[in-house]
Amino acid sequence: MGLLVVGSIALDTVETPFDKIENALGGSSVYISLAASYFTSPVHLVGIVGEDFDEKYIQMLEDHGIDLDGLQIVPGGKTFRWGGKYHYDLNIRDTIFTELNVFENFNPVIPEKSRKSKFVMLGNIQPNLQLHVLDQLEEPQFVVTDTMNLWIETALEDLLKVLKRTNVLIINDSEARLLTNESNLIKAAKAIMGMGPEYLIIKKGEHGALLFGEDNIFSAPAYPLEDIFDPTGAGDTFAGGFIGYLDHVRDLNFENMKRAVVYGSAMASFAVEKFSTKGIEDLTRLQIHDRFIEFRELSRFDDAGKF
Amino acid sequence: MGLLVVGSIALDTVETPFDKIENALGGSSVYISLAASYFTSPVHLVGIVGEDFDEKYIQMLEDHGIDLDGLQIVPGGKTFRWGGKYHYDLNIRDTIFTELNVFENFNPVIPEKSRKSKFVMLGNIQPNLQLHVLDQLEEPQFVVTDTMNLWIETALEDLLKVLKRTNVLIINDSEARLLTNESNLIKAAKAIMGMGPEYLIIKKGEHGALLFGEDNIFSAPAYPLEDIFDPTGAGDTFAGGFIGYLDHVRDLNFENMKRAVVYGSAMASFAVEKFSTKGIEDLTRLQIHDRFIEFRELSRFDDAGKF
Repeated sequence: MGLLVVGSIALDTVETPFDKIENALGGSSVYISLAASYFTSPVHLVGIVGEDFDEKYIQMLEDHGIDLDGLQIVPGGKTFRWGGKYHYDLNIRDTIFTELNVFENFNPVIPEKSRKSKFVMLGNIQPNLQLHVLDQLEEPQFVVTDTMNLWIETALEDLLKVLKRTNVLIINDSEARLLTNESNLIKAAKAIMGMGPEYLIIKKGEHGALLFGEDNIFSAPAYPLEDIFDPTGAGDTFAGGFIGYLDHVRDLNFENMKRAVVYGSAMASFAVEKFSTKGIEDLTRLQIHDRFIEFRELSRFDDAGKF
Repeated sequence: MGLLVVGSIALDTVETPFDKIENALGGSSVYISLAASYFTSPVHLVGIVGEDFDEKYIQMLEDHGIDLDGLQIVPGGKTFRWGGKYHYDLNIRDTIFTELNVFENFNPVIPEKSRKSKFVMLGNIQPNLQLHVLDQLEEPQFVVTDTMNLWIETALEDLLKVLKRTNVLIINDSEARLLTNESNLIKAAKAIMGMGPEYLIIKKGEHGALLFGEDNIFSAPAYPLEDIFDPTGAGDTFAGGFIGYLDHVRDLNFENMKRAVVYGSAMASFAVEKFSTKGIEDLTRLQIHDRFIEFRELSRFDDAGKF
């Protein structure tokens, strides 16, 4: 049992207008697992690294109660490396380099004990690997999937198979438009839900997020941050907070889904305040709940009755 | 007394991917006055048209209780004409032509009885004309100002003088960034409020709006419209609903300001559902309040306590 998380593990080199960091911990499964670890336990992480992966990272993840039995460490191998540079407008980034290394031949193997997991987070990896993960599970009940423009453009057939087995798809607005060739986000959302997912979350960066499902729409605000140090991992952190909260409450109604979106947003707002995973390594549940309340105050208004 | 509205009056030729309309009623003061007329009375409209301005438009405005004593009709003159074409992505539009005609020599003259107006909406016109309007008023108490990128780029000095006499500035996100040379909207907002306005509203189109003031921030959602027929006038309609509601309640606290932003958003959502001013010509207060409640449902979530 527990929450199963599959995705990339990376050493990121990130440059922003404010600072630069080299070979820092990153990757979708790392951000997801860390964010989820504040809400639920155990979190089973499945991923791959090389022999160069620092023991201190393993220690930090284990300190968060993350189970690493599914972590493959390739002797003599090098960990996946990604380099990116953010513009002054942090919504725009260039990929400077991508060294897949051991990630190129990643074959996610779910440890025996984790195959009974009911809650599954498929981080952003090749759709055929996401399918391979699902094939190994006994009876997944709630599958949350992330993807990206690359897979929409190059692996659409497999991605559509994943979507048929997905309960919640999390993508950003440009990906939603790309996947449906529809500029209106509400129409795009309807089209995507016709592809399989019962729920859809469209992330809009500094504009918040939209949740669709049960013939309902929820609009979550974005946290008004003046200083965003590193947007890397914000989407993965959102996903981790989202599924972590739902794995905690284990009651899938729309009110809880809305709260999960806000908890995901809260976690992402912590993540971007520091480089790498630093922003979500040392939080308390109280801090997270306080930020949830800040989101509520930000968007709350009351009806004063008819005018 | 009453609400004073100054701005353009136009005959718009608008093409969208869905339809085309020629010489239809438009202009900032028209959208503002119509939207405000559902909340408060009288609304004094100050603007200029040519002899070609159709009597039926005058009748329609008067039917909404809009006082046209400040409407200048230039004998032999032609009304301001604007032509625009929207892309498939309705967030993008090209101006096809602009014929200023009588608007080129517009000198807004406030009728004697309207000079005591306390609530003033300065629609998007040249900043020196906005200043000229303010100079004619006895004791304006609440001045809401709209502007555009053109004036930020070509008439900044006058615009800064207007801002010093403005209580609420309403602009869109790209204008806020242009005015401050700051990509982070929260920082841009702080910079703008340093220029004079006590409150600032940043409109973000399909992403809703942000209200800043009293050391507080409010994030309003956008109404999830699948079919936007004509975005023309949405910003003006927003402004009209906003100041109209506040002129109605006459109690300027942050809770009312938030509600006013939502009423403005609600009015704008009606405006874009039809071409020209058609979407806001035949509404009822009940319909408007119902849409306000829809906005509330769209963004409402509750705290379930500590997790």
